[in-house]
Amino acid sequence: MYLAKIYITLKPLVNDPQGLTIRGALHNLGFTTVTSVRAGKYIEIQLDENNREQAQLKVTGMCEKLLANPVIENYHFELEKI
Amino acid sequence: MYLAKIYITLKPLVNDPQGLTIRGALHNLGFTTVTSVRAGKYIEIQLDENNREQAQLKVTGMCEKLLANPVIENYHFELEKI
Repeated sequence: MYLAKIYITLKPLVNDPQGLTIRGALHNLGFTTVTSVRAGKYIEIQLDENNREQAQLKVTGMCEKLLANPVIENYHFELEKI
Repeated sequence: MYLAKIYITLKPLVNDPQGLTIRGALHNLGFTTVTSVRAGKYIEIQLDENNREQAQLKVTGMCEKLLANPVIENYHFELEKI
């Protein structure tokens, strides 16, 4: 079994309205030293695979096909044997 | 300046309909070895602080007051000097 921890973020030049909204709310709450906020996704997936290379290939496939939008998002992941 | 990388996940016993939907979609795409999916949030915040303790306090405050719902979510974060 492997646990994949997947981080999906918007590419740096892509506009991030969610992040801007969070930054505005933090400023209103008094956190005025916040200069930038980028919002992304964090997904944990458990895989019933015994082979690390196989698990890596599968998770890359999932990111490319479903989890991330490769046009506007970057992703990276870590695999942990469980 | 500090960069805070914040990970927000649902507590283990909380129902995760988004995760279940992603798992269903992955199964339909042929990724049948996926046993569990938990969806969470990943937020990057840049802070104009010079002191690590101060930055840590601020980010904890942001998580408690706005970013996470402490009733159903856990959070942890890393601070990186930039």
